[in-house]
Amino acid sequence: MELLFLGTGAGVPAKQRNVSSLALELLQERGAVWLFDCGEATQHQILHTTVKPRRIEKIFITHLHGDHIYGLPGLLGSRSFQGGESLLTVYGPKGIKEFIEVTLAVSQTHLQYPLEIVEIEEESESGTIFEDETFSVEFGKLEHGILSYGYRVVEKDLPGSLDVQRLKEMNIPPGPHYQQLKEGKEVVLKDGRIINGQEFLGEPKKGKVITVLGDTRKCMQSVQLAMHASVLVHEATFSAGDEELAYNYFHSTAKEAAEIAKTASAERLILSHISSRYQGDAVSRLAEGAKEIFPNTDIAEDLKRFTIS
Amino acid sequence: MELLFLGTGAGVPAKQRNVSSLALELLQERGAVWLFDCGEATQHQILHTTVKPRRIEKIFITHLHGDHIYGLPGLLGSRSFQGGESLLTVYGPKGIKEFIEVTLAVSQTHLQYPLEIVEIEEESESGTIFEDETFSVEFGKLEHGILSYGYRVVEKDLPGSLDVQRLKEMNIPPGPHYQQLKEGKEVVLKDGRIINGQEFLGEPKKGKVITVLGDTRKCMQSVQLAMHASVLVHEATFSAGDEELAYNYFHSTAKEAAEIAKTASAERLILSHISSRYQGDAVSRLAEGAKEIFPNTDIAEDLKRFTIS
Repeated sequence: MELLFLGTGAGVPAKQRNVSSLALELLQERGAVWLFDCGEATQHQILHTTVKPRRIEKIFITHLHGDHIYGLPGLLGSRSFQGGESLLTVYGPKGIKEFIEVTLAVSQTHLQYPLEIVEIEEESESGTIFEDETFSVEFGKLEHGILSYGYRVVEKDLPGSLDVQRLKEMNIPPGPHYQQLKEGKEVVLKDGRIINGQEFLGEPKKGKVITVLGDTRKCMQSVQLAMHASVLVHEATFSAGDEELAYNYFHSTAKEAAEIAKTASAERLILSHISSRYQGDAVSRLAEGAKEIFPNTDIAEDLKRFTIS
Repeated sequence: MELLFLGTGAGVPAKQRNVSSLALELLQERGAVWLFDCGEATQHQILHTTVKPRRIEKIFITHLHGDHIYGLPGLLGSRSFQGGESLLTVYGPKGIKEFIEVTLAVSQTHLQYPLEIVEIEEESESGTIFEDETFSVEFGKLEHGILSYGYRVVEKDLPGSLDVQRLKEMNIPPGPHYQQLKEGKEVVLKDGRIINGQEFLGEPKKGKVITVLGDTRKCMQSVQLAMHASVLVHEATFSAGDEELAYNYFHSTAKEAAEIAKTASAERLILSHISSRYQGDAVSRLAEGAKEIFPNTDIAEDLKRFTIS
């Protein structure tokens, strides 16, 4: 599981940082890539990575500001042009459906794959927006000038590994029943013995939790979404000391992001959505201020990859 | 007067060529920049040039395919964010208004400058879409899978220069009446003499004609728009020999573009909208094939600038 930052800037593109987009690579887990936000030129950034657009299975939009969505129509079209055929689902605030449908219709872009658009109900403060056997995704409403969401991706606990050694010692040879035992089921052997898989499974392995927040003021919802997360991706549009400015513009400082990570007992914090007013040393100072509160903090850079272990 | 190519590729962005956009710099002529098309990441390309978004006065959209318009919402927003206050006018096919209005509204982008959107009437085969004292812009309907236009920018002839030497010889000293004479008006001097400015003006200087076509098959409308043009910018999605392919996909080959330039007696041809299937030597061959028919041919490259003299 890896996080690959495609755009880590705020508001408008700059040479050093493009507008927002983040890829969660789940290649081992489900052979797929999930995107969070898709600012203009996200598909251009992807050209410099190993990400295959046809592998993109889901796109989660945190909010509808242009620097988070203007790259969507182009990416959707190119995914089709490049042979993508599998279902793509876009999740986001109310309005994302109109945006996608009008931009594709006006440009007469006909996708060669099924596109599903799931809008979050405006009334819901939080909830679960996706769930299957291996993952669930929760959302929560943040505090921004426009409806903005955070997402909590929860990998389900992986079953413990089967104690093959002990099975062999009991003269239970490998075969199709091993798979059933692995799934914790009961198996009747040829010799009549009944074996319960549960008794041969080790401790389940804890799944990862990835929390990605949209633009927001420091708020309690962020803490809930980030609780015990393996990694929290939080905006840091301003640096410590500019808390009033951040509050007035519905954004956060790096220090506030660190406080959220600490309160939520997250394992790791990555700061993104960095304003282009911060360059070089100013970015380092941004990080240092946050580290004083939450030591395991990193600053995201465009095309930088973080392995989540 | 200069042409600065911002994106010269076809269909989807590639590392070497971005999707379509072309800047016509009229800094000396009117302190303004006009854009033709605005594919995704046009504003990113602009970051690498001296173009100031607030200087962009007009944007002409040739057709509504995504690779020609997806950069519009971002550029419009950034122009505002960066302090643009002057009127911006966008011209294009029916549908461009809905595209701009929906994308700005959904993203709650509130421009700090007046935006005018002029849609070409679908029934019109050709006409004049803009005219003032120094320039006019004509449009003509081309042949593409979707409504596609070509634009002919006509600089009005510049008045001849005033023969100051002869005026001085006639003992007519410099003063405010020189301006009136320059405008070809009659002036009554203090000594009672009546002087006609027309008699002291040299030959008018021919204005430039810039023709920029949208995607198109080889067609007669292109010839009309390019007639005696100082420069013709024509698409060359395919290379010579692929005329059937070009016809089927409503595009042109480089050879066909050269034939148009020749028939129209244009002075210069620049080929753009080059498919990423052509790289290195293949691009040179594209140019050579065209040059056999129309020698004064160039291939556009991203960020390449051509002075129109």
